[in-house]
Order: sequence, then structure tokens, then C-alpha cells
Amino acid sequence: MSDPVPAPAAADGGEFELIRRHFDRGPSRRAVLGIGDDCALLAPPRQAGEVFAVTTDMLVSGRHFFPDVDPEALGHKALAVNLSDLAAMGAQPVAFTLAIALPDADGRWLDAFARGLFALADRHGCELVGGDTTRGPLAISITAIGSVPQGAALRRDRAEPGDDLWLSGELGAAAFAVRCRDLGRALPPDDPALARLDRPEPRVALGLALRHFARAAIDLSDGLAGDLGHVLERSRAGAEIEFDRIPIAASLETLPLAERVALALGGGDDYELLFTAAPENATAIAAIGERIGLPLARIGTITAGSSLRVLDARGAPIAVPARGFDHFAGGAPRATQ
Amino acid sequence: MSDPVPAPAAADGGEFELIRRHFDRGPSRRAVLGIGDDCALLAPPRQAGEVFAVTTDMLVSGRHFFPDVDPEALGHKALAVNLSDLAAMGAQPVAFTLAIALPDADGRWLDAFARGLFALADRHGCELVGGDTTRGPLAISITAIGSVPQGAALRRDRAEPGDDLWLSGELGAAAFAVRCRDLGRALPPDDPALARLDRPEPRVALGLALRHFARAAIDLSDGLAGDLGHVLERSRAGAEIEFDRIPIAASLETLPLAERVALALGGGDDYELLFTAAPENATAIAAIGERIGLPLARIGTITAGSSLRVLDARGAPIAVPARGFDHFAGGAPRATQ
Repeated sequence: MSDPVPAPAAADGGEFELIRRHFDRGPSRRAVLGIGDDCALLAPPRQAGEVFAVTTDMLVSGRHFFPDVDPEALGHKALAVNLSDLAAMGAQPVAFTLAIALPDADGRWLDAFARGLFALADRHGCELVGGDTTRGPLAISITAIGSVPQGAALRRDRAEPGDDLWLSGELGAAAFAVRCRDLGRALPPDDPALARLDRPEPRVALGLALRHFARAAIDLSDGLAGDLGHVLERSRAGAEIEFDRIPIAASLETLPLAERVALALGGGDDYELLFTAAPENATAIAAIGERIGLPLARIGTITAGSSLRVLDARGAPIAVPARGFDHFAGGAPRATQ
Repeated sequence: MSDPVPAPAAADGGEFELIRRHFDRGPSRRAVLGIGDDCALLAPPRQAGEVFAVTTDMLVSGRHFFPDVDPEALGHKALAVNLSDLAAMGAQPVAFTLAIALPDADGRWLDAFARGLFALADRHGCELVGGDTTRGPLAISITAIGSVPQGAALRRDRAEPGDDLWLSGELGAAAFAVRCRDLGRALPPDDPALARLDRPEPRVALGLALRHFARAAIDLSDGLAGDLGHVLERSRAGAEIEFDRIPIAASLETLPLAERVALALGGGDDYELLFTAAPENATAIAAIGERIGLPLARIGTITAGSSLRVLDARGAPIAVPARGFDHFAGGAPRATQ
């Protein structure tokens, strides 16, 4: 029978201290109640008619990233893929939760991970409000919550025949970086393709600007062909794309056409937005691209029917990779949804 | 150059079909928009003054459950530990997201997992609104969202000296089942301790009934001593418990006192609610227990200071396990937060 134990000792060292040291940044600014209770408490969106947009992505070591990944880049990317989903909905980021399984409690690794995570979170005013830390094979699951006026949400099922099909940025760089690693061809550390793979930039400002101008939208995580397929299926529509209108990353310039097609249409991890809009909004959309400094390209048209046609410069069809990346069909580490 | 690919083919087989077959149950009932877009859309709570409660838990194979776990029980438990957090906040379950990493796409395993998951979800009107499926070492991360009137939320930091300390149900059965497995002593399949470990019942009805009657609350996942320690630390208070008032599971009856103490105070996975309330609410709280058919025991008192004292029948102090389960301090598979 020993003396009673002072209560605060229960939180010394280990899991609780780990969470506190790396992830608890004090009283919440956006939530009614942040980290440290059974739940966080989030006030409803401030504007009438707004709803919460909720998305979850899980990144697994060896599947979505290499085990030796730079932890700061991983912290960035784990949140970026979720903010990209909010952007594709036209939602303003509000808060997120983080569940992380770690093989060991490595303070330096966690420092760098938290630095990458919070740098991106702070830029978008998105606050960590809760989480769970456990030991296990490295895996990260983030749930992000944003707000959007219900009628302005950019849904996958809203494309209409006659809509222009738009794309932000350029495609293929991240898939090119993965391909090079698979082939054992090291890229120089400052190759922009590596930055596109490791630190994708979620198109949050674009998603917000497209409210009321775009109809349907999706973010490109699994490749243009597969992700566009989701929009077409849910909108019960088809599409025709002019391949030469798709901006392709400079890293791919010297590749044969077939490889450029494969990486641009079937490669993943681009995290650009693909969206549709009525042709009368074309000028406004071009102006949005100018204002936020992000090139926007009109790459095709939504059609009646259900087929996706990609045409070359002479109007001849180009073979389309059949599907997006499938996590149960093998392949190298790639990011998801 | 082949023919253009019909768009719906992009969703044949693999990940997307897997998600659809097991987890997509058609148009959402509670959400504005459910599974199948970049985000789910959730309308704000219906009542003025209500906020969303948000919680995340990750369960990892070999850590929180054994790899040969019954998938139906796992589906139940993965959601139950999150609903338990909502209950501890006094929140009404609304919706949840599911991220799951699977070593392979085993349809029978997923059938059973989904059956356990949805049986519990349906009982609490909690709808799956989004998720992510990937290949990887088995891990499940659920984020659950509930609603609660802001002023009625049962927070950890609200205990006050003089409050009664209450406990639902009985303790120790789940920890006893883990201990038996660790020692290679198989329990009969119908031993109630196994059911407590594999299918904990989140105390949602109790959490809702305690709004306006309890002050602070926490759910017991890591052991009474450690979890009470969180309440005491955040409330800047201490507590005194009479050990003989703690209802202990019948499975532990024949154990020596020291083992009963270790399992009841230091064992985890009970998922009972520990809460504090002003003494004048004692009659009302006893009536709540009667009404919902769940025994509620007054096991002690919140005190000034910061120490946790546990006393035996003669008023002598009993040694308290120093902390809750720490995922970075070794040990057998156990459930978290």
C-alpha cells in the first residue's frame, strides 16, 4: 500500500505527453472546444444556408508514400489531400482531426511532421481540433471539415451536356516522379516534379472562387481519366477532350506521346481541379484564373451519352487509360481519393 | 489507338466497387449529400444553440485487436469506441466517416465487418457519410459527429470539489479477458467478459440523459485511474474513491484483491461513463439509471487539491496504478481513447 498518486502524474511521458508536445497548440481559436476532451465542439457555420463539408483520407506507408519520406512533406501532404477534397466542393476549410499510427515515438520525426502539417493548416485557417495517436505501422488518417453555402457546393453530379470542361494547372509531374523512382532513375532534388509529388498545393482559393460559376468539380488524385469518369457517371454524361489542350508538365516534354498520354490521363497525385461550367461563364472563369495566379485551361466539352473521347490534333481518338488508380490492383505507392 | 472507353467502366471492380458493394447504402437520410462525392455535406444541428461534437479513434491490428478478430465484432467496436466518446460529451450521434486499410479485398470479411458496423450505427441513427478504402496493414479510423446543446456538453474540465463521482455499469471484465488471452487461458466462448471486450456498448442513452444533471464526464477506455486523472487535471481537482463501492465484474470475483484492484482501476476497454454531479442531483441520477436500465454507482467524491485517493473498507489507502494504458509503453492489444 503506497501513498496516493498525485493526479497529474497520470499524464507524464508517453502518449499523452507526445500529443501535447507536438499537436496541442493551446486554446482553440475556431472551435468552441479543441483538443483534450472526449470530443471537440464545433459551432455551426456562421452564415445562414451554409452546411459542413466533411472528407476523410488515409495515407499508408508503402502505399501512398515511401517509408523514408521527409516527415515535413508528409505532414503537408496528409492534410493537402483532404483540403483538396474541400476545394473540389467549393468549401472553406474550418477544422480537422488527425489519427496517426507510428512505429515509435520519434520526437524529431514528429517535430518535422507537425511543422509541415501546421504550416499548411495555418495558411488556410484550418484548425486541428482532435485526434488519436497509437503505435502501429505508419498510417495517417485526417478528417477535414469545411463550410459551403448548400446551393453553391460543387458536386460531381451537376455536369450538363454543353458545359465547358476546365482544368487548373498542369498534369503529369507527380506521376512522372513516381515513374522515375520505380525505374531507379533519381531526379535532382530540386526537380519540380518531386515538389509536385511531395507537396501538392490544394486549390482552395480556386474552389472558393468557382462557387456560383462552376457546376460540377472533382480534384484529380487518381488520374484525369478515372476522376472524370466519376463526374460523368454521376452526372450521366459523356465528355470530349482535345489532348493538345491539356497543359502537361515540362518534365514530360521529351517523353514519347504514348507515355505523355499515360502520365497525363492515367497518372495520379496531381491535385488539380477538374470542373465544368456553362460556356457563358468562360470569361469570368478566365478572370478568376488571372486573379488568383493559377492557369485555367478549357480542355473539352461535356456531351450527351456516356463515353469519354480524347482526340489528338487531327481529331483522331487517343486510347484512354481504362481506370484510375486502384488500391486493390497493385502498383507503386500513390495518394488516394 | 482503341475505341473510346465508356465512362462507367472506370468504376468496375476493385476499390470503387468494393466501397459501393459494402458501404454505400443509397441516398443519404441524415446528410444533404452522402457517400460518392469529394465531401459529404452535413446540415447544421436542427436546434438553435446546438454544436457539433467531433471525435476520432484509430484501431490498429495487433495493437487494439488480435489479427484473427471476428470482423463483425470489429465493425461494432470500431464505431462503438467513437460513439462512447460522443456519449461522454452528452452528444446525439449524427454521422460518421470510415477510413480503412485492408491487407486484401476479402468480400466475406468485409460483409461481416459492415454488418457489425451498420447494426450499431442503425441502432443510434448514426449514418456513414464518407470514407476511404486502401490497401495496407489492417487499420480502421472512424470520425464520429454528434450534436449537443453547447451549454449542456459534459466536459472534462467541469468537475467541482464536493461533486459526487458516479460510474455506470461495472469494471474489469474486458481487461480480465485480455489478461486471460495473454496468459493463454482460453475463456469459454460465452463468457461475458469476452463480450465486454469485443462488443462494448456505448452509453449513448446515459450521456443524453445526463445533460443538465452531470457536470463533468469521460468514458473509460484506458482504465479508471488514468481516465479520472484527465478529469482531475483539467478540472484542477482531486478525488477520493471508496474501492468497495466500485461494481466489479463477476468474472473477477475469485481473484486476489491486488489483481481486482489492478484490473478495475488500471484495466481498460470498459467504455463505461465516469461522471460528476452536484449532490442535490443524486436522486435524479439514480432515477435515470432506473429508467434506462443501467446501474449507476456513487463511488466517491471530487475534492480540492490534486490527488486521487482510493480507500479500502477500513479507510486505508490502496495503491493506484500510476497511469492509463500508454500506446508507446508496450503491452498487449488494447483499445484506445
